[in-house]
Amino acid sequence: MKRRNLLGGLSAAALAGACAPKSEAPGAQASNQTFRWKMVTTWPPNFPGLGVGAANLAKLIEQMSAGRLQISVYAGGELVPPFETFDAVSRGTAEMGHGAAYYWKGKAEATQFFTAVPFGFNAQEIYAWMYYGGGLKLYQELYANFNLVPFAAGSTGVQMGGWFNKRIDTVQDLKGLKMRIPGLGGEILQRAGGTPVTLPGSEIFTALQTGSIDAAEWVGPYNDIAFGLHQAAKYYYYPGWHETGPALECLVNAQAWASLPADLQAIVSTACQAVSTDMLAEFAARNATSLQQILNSDVEVLPFPDTVLRRLKAITGEVLTELVARDPASAKIWASQSEFMRVSDQWQQISEAAVLRARHL
Amino acid sequence: MKRRNLLGGLSAAALAGACAPKSEAPGAQASNQTFRWKMVTTWPPNFPGLGVGAANLAKLIEQMSAGRLQISVYAGGELVPPFETFDAVSRGTAEMGHGAAYYWKGKAEATQFFTAVPFGFNAQEIYAWMYYGGGLKLYQELYANFNLVPFAAGSTGVQMGGWFNKRIDTVQDLKGLKMRIPGLGGEILQRAGGTPVTLPGSEIFTALQTGSIDAAEWVGPYNDIAFGLHQAAKYYYYPGWHETGPALECLVNAQAWASLPADLQAIVSTACQAVSTDMLAEFAARNATSLQQILNSDVEVLPFPDTVLRRLKAITGEVLTELVARDPASAKIWASQSEFMRVSDQWQQISEAAVLRARHL
Repeated sequence: MKRRNLLGGLSAAALAGACAPKSEAPGAQASNQTFRWKMVTTWPPNFPGLGVGAANLAKLIEQMSAGRLQISVYAGGELVPPFETFDAVSRGTAEMGHGAAYYWKGKAEATQFFTAVPFGFNAQEIYAWMYYGGGLKLYQELYANFNLVPFAAGSTGVQMGGWFNKRIDTVQDLKGLKMRIPGLGGEILQRAGGTPVTLPGSEIFTALQTGSIDAAEWVGPYNDIAFGLHQAAKYYYYPGWHETGPALECLVNAQAWASLPADLQAIVSTACQAVSTDMLAEFAARNATSLQQILNSDVEVLPFPDTVLRRLKAITGEVLTELVARDPASAKIWASQSEFMRVSDQWQQISEAAVLRARHL
Repeated sequence: MKRRNLLGGLSAAALAGACAPKSEAPGAQASNQTFRWKMVTTWPPNFPGLGVGAANLAKLIEQMSAGRLQISVYAGGELVPPFETFDAVSRGTAEMGHGAAYYWKGKAEATQFFTAVPFGFNAQEIYAWMYYGGGLKLYQELYANFNLVPFAAGSTGVQMGGWFNKRIDTVQDLKGLKMRIPGLGGEILQRAGGTPVTLPGSEIFTALQTGSIDAAEWVGPYNDIAFGLHQAAKYYYYPGWHETGPALECLVNAQAWASLPADLQAIVSTACQAVSTDMLAEFAARNATSLQQILNSDVEVLPFPDTVLRRLKAITGEVLTELVARDPASAKIWASQSEFMRVSDQWQQISEAAVLRARHL
């Protein structure tokens, strides 16, 4: 299969940074052909950080290719509904998409591992696993079943635990808690006795303020204060145990990918890596300044009690055990990810955690 | 000045990801001209992580440009001695260089702030400051005085505190300590009563084993075990208080930069951002596996006592106060960096530090 060969060539080359000799690269010469692509996304129009990051990805590609690969970016709903991004790129309605892999768990449960697992990788680790721990190869294998070539493209860094109108002191306080929290996080809350609800971001403010929900997580300080959530809730909890460094994704239709000459393929894959640096930098800077605003508001910023985090972690273990037992693809990916995490954690503790601790001595 | 305009256009465009409209971009059309550049580096031949990262940068640029920008990479000493990289690129002997800004403190003391300050930024924060906190603009301003255009290009992540034959229990144990530690770290050790010595990496093993030095820092587990240091010393200390997330740099000669059409400029600046994701991922993965080897060796892996870190931090404050008092460029950059750090630290503590802590509950 020609397409698989191209993918194999790419993962050994541009993606891992260890290029094959130039003479072996297929289509290494630039052609003058101009490609006009559509990028559909899961993000609301002009969505800070995430949507802006997708637009930056398209702009970088256009700039680097001197306009030979032009990409029109569509917010969710403009061309297809946000959660049809995966299907639209798979069938070629759009050549490219931007979103998050865990939105596609209805297609394949294992997609969730490429975004975030509760109590999982930080942003540094998920890229380490992708590029130097075999993760990207597993990602490509899974998505090949759907006629898609996936790339990691951006990260929000650590997300927050959410906004609460009710103070959480014990695991008992989770019982009956009506919280806007999607995905695995929601499933875990449910097993802890809460009621996860699904709400689009734009409705969170009113739902919290009127008390129709008790709590909601969204992204982090930067995106959260854009919705005014610090004026709707009493408490803001950290850390975001459910999404500790989620990776975002760029999807490319497999035939569209194969049609690109090698230089444009390298431009796309490199732009995705560049956007990962840039977006994480943006979130780190803007979350920090937005947190100041929250600390100056009436909201109390609190850590979850250790007992609560321990309970959520124990349930996470149960949920993953069941997922891995019923889905072979998840089993294969989790085996790789959990072994990487075991080794990585010791290094992260004596490096990243230790330097942040040393600042406060 | 045409060159400064180009720089201004770049920092508002490719670097910050917010491109000017295509019609305004100078030289936006790809030319068919082929550029053959030399990249001189400060790294030994085939140096893991750092030298390999510089070579990857050149390969990505060549791939993305379909060979229109070809870069021959030279290890330190192959074309010019390692520490003449800055001068060689400044005068145009080579068009490009790769190294670390703090090597050039003899040219301008303020260069040190673009690599690492003791008890300073982690890798996530230094990029946040560069791209969204005004750091890159200050970096470009300083280097414009030397006919150079600088880019952040790669990070090792947290470096380690070093290898010791003598156990460090109190600040008294630093007195008389003969340690291989360069730069600001060495100056701080000296004020704590130690004796910093300068040694190339290749001589550390023998010096430690024969006892001609008591201690040495190098990079981190991945690079350190390549020299067998776990077989030469008794203790391995963490964290690396002196380099908590150093950024590496790509230098471009200003005239060479101005000669590139806009698409090749975008390719160079984007490749630098991509290498930052890739190199940090490589270090995170390989440091983690190398640490396992060290934990399985006879070396004892220990944290520095809090009293020692507190003393080193207090001296860091003194050294920076003096530096800022005597050098206006350092004062300007440190004002920006320390204010960014003040705000950033609160976010890092409730995000990155908190998720690493939650894993161990």
